[in-house]
Amino acid sequence: MTFSETLSGAWQRNDSLLCVGLDPDPARFPAHLEGRADAIFEFCASIADATADLVCCFKPQIAYFAAHRAEDQLQALIAHIHARHPGIPVILDAKRGDIGSTAEQYAKEAFERYGADALTASPYMGKDSIDPYLARPDKGVLLLCRTSNAGGSELQDLDVGGRKLYEHVAELVAHQWNTTGQCGLVVGATHPDELARVRRIVGELPLLVPGIGAQGGDVSAAVRAGRTEKGVGMMINSSRAILYAGKDENYGEAARRAASQTRERINRYR
Amino acid sequence: MTFSETLSGAWQRNDSLLCVGLDPDPARFPAHLEGRADAIFEFCASIADATADLVCCFKPQIAYFAAHRAEDQLQALIAHIHARHPGIPVILDAKRGDIGSTAEQYAKEAFERYGADALTASPYMGKDSIDPYLARPDKGVLLLCRTSNAGGSELQDLDVGGRKLYEHVAELVAHQWNTTGQCGLVVGATHPDELARVRRIVGELPLLVPGIGAQGGDVSAAVRAGRTEKGVGMMINSSRAILYAGKDENYGEAARRAASQTRERINRYR
Repeated sequence: MTFSETLSGAWQRNDSLLCVGLDPDPARFPAHLEGRADAIFEFCASIADATADLVCCFKPQIAYFAAHRAEDQLQALIAHIHARHPGIPVILDAKRGDIGSTAEQYAKEAFERYGADALTASPYMGKDSIDPYLARPDKGVLLLCRTSNAGGSELQDLDVGGRKLYEHVAELVAHQWNTTGQCGLVVGATHPDELARVRRIVGELPLLVPGIGAQGGDVSAAVRAGRTEKGVGMMINSSRAILYAGKDENYGEAARRAASQTRERINRYR
Repeated sequence: MTFSETLSGAWQRNDSLLCVGLDPDPARFPAHLEGRADAIFEFCASIADATADLVCCFKPQIAYFAAHRAEDQLQALIAHIHARHPGIPVILDAKRGDIGSTAEQYAKEAFERYGADALTASPYMGKDSIDPYLARPDKGVLLLCRTSNAGGSELQDLDVGGRKLYEHVAELVAHQWNTTGQCGLVVGATHPDELARVRRIVGELPLLVPGIGAQGGDVSAAVRAGRTEKGVGMMINSSRAILYAGKDENYGEAARRAASQTRERINRYR
């Protein structure tokens, strides 16, 4: 099964475009996890177990693990998701970008060490910087296009021959880099008009869409702008609003309620 | 001491613009290191000890450590360099790029966990994605501008209002983002004319210059194009040509000879 096939299966089976972002911040964990050596794994695995039938994918952000020397917990977490929730792809959010020989090392890290199904990457260094990822035909690569942060406009909105840089990146990835069907794009929910422009350029390419929830993006506008004709094509990420919905031992149940509500809000506009 | 002051001190003291890139590939290590659990640390520390008086900085590439689960060895290596070779800055080559809350985690990883003096980063997400690094006034941030790989031209050479995207990035970083004097740029040696254009735009900003040696860039052309008026301003990286100059137990001596020759070739054109 390729990443794209697994993702399509999860969209249908769980009737969901929701991606739960796993950005563990130990300072916000429930008190009973304090001091546990495996607190990061325990917290994230509980969230995954509580929401797995409501999502189309999970997205651990590697910086949150690396800042706490928790590489082993990240590896255990992805193995846990694959074992307990087969058919739900795991995207390693790492935004890698480097020349071929180094990108090959990043590919080993993401796909062999961690067993991720897809990786986020930066387009700035060109296609040869993602070739080592594309050499693994069952894996996906999601390239930064229009990001949800305020500073994203500085480069991404530059005019390059009558269109903006992010539109050029969308065109390049969809029509030149994606020869094997492994590519997708990262497009923030905070600018629905730009999300709509990207969708028109890329056809049915999958879009990872951060920026709803804590970042303030409007769910209805994002879904209407980013869905494909069949009402799929998006992985709409929510992290903090789900992870920290509860503050005590019942955080899993609170996360499940928040995930369920978000899935329903999304489905209302598909 | 800031990164910029430490770097200036090393340029003068060692009369060197050479950066030794630490990209450890266990398949190319001398046979006597085979099977050792700390082979990566041992190999890189020996290279650092053999070359520390010939360089202006060291640059470990994090992917080469991460692909081998060698985070502890990376941490030990940077601590070793700081303890044994004070005054030689260590640049963590990671090409990070993410929104503020995640970039804060990357800052913790690079500067608190690993104790690096500077970090490479991507400009694609805008200035707010590097603010967490700049909040640490003693640290440096080196932003991708014109990279040495063939695919680098795809985005970086796009015309943005009469100049190329990489020139725009150079202008933006030097004159808008670098308010605290912590920024530098990554510009490959493989296109000396472009290096010269960047130098004209950025004044005395430090440039990290990969692409000589295995990648084929011409040292004389790169130095003439990239030096400042005072004959400094560059960290010219060589990795494989120095690391693997020798194939047996005397690899440290071979690396020292290669580093010394490269430093002299560079100094001939300063």
